[in-house]
Amino acid sequence: MDTIFSDRISNVPRSFIREILKVTSDRSIISFAGGLPNRDLFPAAEIEKATEKVFRDFGRDVFQYSNSEGLSGLREAISRRYHEKGLEIKPEDILITNGSQQGLDLLGKIFINEGDDIIIEEPGYLGAIQAFSIFRPHFHQITLNEDGIDIAKLKSVMASCKPRLMYSVPNFQNPSGISYSEANRYDVAAVLKGTSTLLVEDDPYGDLRFSGDACSSFKTLLPENTILLGSFSKTVVPGFRLGWIVAPPPVMDRLIIAKQASDLHTGSFTQAIVYQYLQDNDINEHIASIRAAYGRQLQAMLDSIGRYFPEGVFHTHPRGGMFVWVTLPPELSSRELLDLAIKDKVIFVPGDQFFVDKEVNNTMRLNFSCTNEETTRTGIERLGKAINRLMKEKSLASLPSN
Amino acid sequence: MDTIFSDRISNVPRSFIREILKVTSDRSIISFAGGLPNRDLFPAAEIEKATEKVFRDFGRDVFQYSNSEGLSGLREAISRRYHEKGLEIKPEDILITNGSQQGLDLLGKIFINEGDDIIIEEPGYLGAIQAFSIFRPHFHQITLNEDGIDIAKLKSVMASCKPRLMYSVPNFQNPSGISYSEANRYDVAAVLKGTSTLLVEDDPYGDLRFSGDACSSFKTLLPENTILLGSFSKTVVPGFRLGWIVAPPPVMDRLIIAKQASDLHTGSFTQAIVYQYLQDNDINEHIASIRAAYGRQLQAMLDSIGRYFPEGVFHTHPRGGMFVWVTLPPELSSRELLDLAIKDKVIFVPGDQFFVDKEVNNTMRLNFSCTNEETTRTGIERLGKAINRLMKEKSLASLPSN
Repeated sequence: MDTIFSDRISNVPRSFIREILKVTSDRSIISFAGGLPNRDLFPAAEIEKATEKVFRDFGRDVFQYSNSEGLSGLREAISRRYHEKGLEIKPEDILITNGSQQGLDLLGKIFINEGDDIIIEEPGYLGAIQAFSIFRPHFHQITLNEDGIDIAKLKSVMASCKPRLMYSVPNFQNPSGISYSEANRYDVAAVLKGTSTLLVEDDPYGDLRFSGDACSSFKTLLPENTILLGSFSKTVVPGFRLGWIVAPPPVMDRLIIAKQASDLHTGSFTQAIVYQYLQDNDINEHIASIRAAYGRQLQAMLDSIGRYFPEGVFHTHPRGGMFVWVTLPPELSSRELLDLAIKDKVIFVPGDQFFVDKEVNNTMRLNFSCTNEETTRTGIERLGKAINRLMKEKSLASLPSN
Repeated sequence: MDTIFSDRISNVPRSFIREILKVTSDRSIISFAGGLPNRDLFPAAEIEKATEKVFRDFGRDVFQYSNSEGLSGLREAISRRYHEKGLEIKPEDILITNGSQQGLDLLGKIFINEGDDIIIEEPGYLGAIQAFSIFRPHFHQITLNEDGIDIAKLKSVMASCKPRLMYSVPNFQNPSGISYSEANRYDVAAVLKGTSTLLVEDDPYGDLRFSGDACSSFKTLLPENTILLGSFSKTVVPGFRLGWIVAPPPVMDRLIIAKQASDLHTGSFTQAIVYQYLQDNDINEHIASIRAAYGRQLQAMLDSIGRYFPEGVFHTHPRGGMFVWVTLPPELSSRELLDLAIKDKVIFVPGDQFFVDKEVNNTMRLNFSCTNEETTRTGIERLGKAINRLMKEKSLASLPSN
């Protein structure tokens, strides 16, 4: 039956994450594997109030087919939030999508011909690898260093071809937690300036900064070439599937055609609820409470890693977001570690699937948004023991056998 | 700037319908141009009650990320409704999509390679033409006769190539209102049986039958080759964007990958609301009330067409759905007619955009779901006058000029 399928679908990697998450129905397992925001922080009561108002005030048209661009009030609210951050984005340059994941699909549809060169980070966001793979591009993965993308490698790729787009998550990247420094952003902008390469700035985590100052958006540094993706999944709720794309008119024109072809429009009822929620609540106050909680949880994770992980294990030092990236000694496999860790009732995501065509087996992604401080400490202690056990096994195995 | 876009996006036709609908903000215009269900029949109070229950009973997880397949309770409810109609469909063979439009996108993603042959009806559903165009197939459009698809032409296409899929709307098709007769369905099944061509049965209107008996689904006649698409847009509300695909396991496996790549999953909150709505209400009773209203409106339209349209104008005789298809004498252009009709405060959709590569200028689609009987009569009277005027102009113009 395999022959009936399109060539492209066989290019799309499966998400191992979803396989791992099936294990988590066992409540005694501590999971650092998810990529979920913390459900305890959802503004459930406020959403219920907003929903009641929508029923009362919006009338039946909130259940009717709607326009492909999205609810104008919601687009205005997004525009105002950008303004607060110093970015001037017109509401008509915003398209509401089913989460920012759909933004990736729409960008793939309007920009990527088969075989086109595109740049993504290494390690890269799996959802972007999946979304773009549908359109069969040639991926150039460029190393992330602790201060951002590797500029020498970026220059070398830009000298070797004309990438259609560069996909980047400059704030608290998934999976690494790395942010581009201000200097790194200027360097990226200088390399891309005057080229035909579009910079796609995906920013689901930018609001979740626990310390330090926000850096410049590429929309400021490279205004002509930048497309922004945003999301309510980490700041309001993910289950509504509400995100957006910011793009200039000629791109927006094609995005709307692609949106119509994909699903006509994003659900109008949930758009109305989030619009009403934003009218009646101070989202910055809400985000501050998320930041405070996640910040404490990150600190607990970093402290525990310092205490329980053996020497030779390295990790990133995020100042926001939801993830820490861990690199084991090269002789250790994180998939083998996972087998041990599951027995010790702790799980994480092995890092190999965030690499497009390299075999990198000694990395892992740890999520800290869903575990409180105490659970985090317990989980990291268990994981530290598992790493120690695996190291011991490996050094035993590497002893001369006679 | 045009060169930066993918080749595929230039293949997607724009929807002229959306342009026309912008005119309808003028309340004095009678519109037969929409393709909307009637907002006055939305079960708004019942949805509000269901929503209250979801807030009370579902807990915070209804706002969290969810699985790509969709809410299991909703898939079971869809399975039960198929069972009532004599079709045995397992819940695990159902994937929840953002309206059935997204089903088309996902099918395109997993089945269509560039240049693949696919069959659609002529005239064909514009949303399907748009969705599939993204994947650059070679369309074979096959004439719809009053009793279904033209079997001789279907045989000739099947003899000339191996179509990847045949897209059909066998019940009250959009735009024509035509249904395949039972005999026609058997003939189609006989032609496709044993071939590798998949039959995609899109059935948004099947429940909206005003008279006569339901015919067999292709899922019964051609079980191995049939994929079903369904939707809550015409029976509950369209603004939630909830539809589904029914497909066997190997296809489902790929559909889920494509769904993840497209937008991770369909909104969990609105799925829960429709699930609760179906638990607490008799949807068949609700559908009966829609059928009664639309049936009266269709009758008013057909009666008025009989009274006000001149000889030489032909139309289909639907027994359900939302549309009547009108064919003007070949020398009349429905776009020219629209210009006249707008002045008389009545609009419709010219039929040319439902043809892929033929120029057919003398057809039009009339929607009857959104106008009550009196408004329908007034609108058809106005349209009849406009047709008469255009005929007069044309016959004057065709008089010998000297």
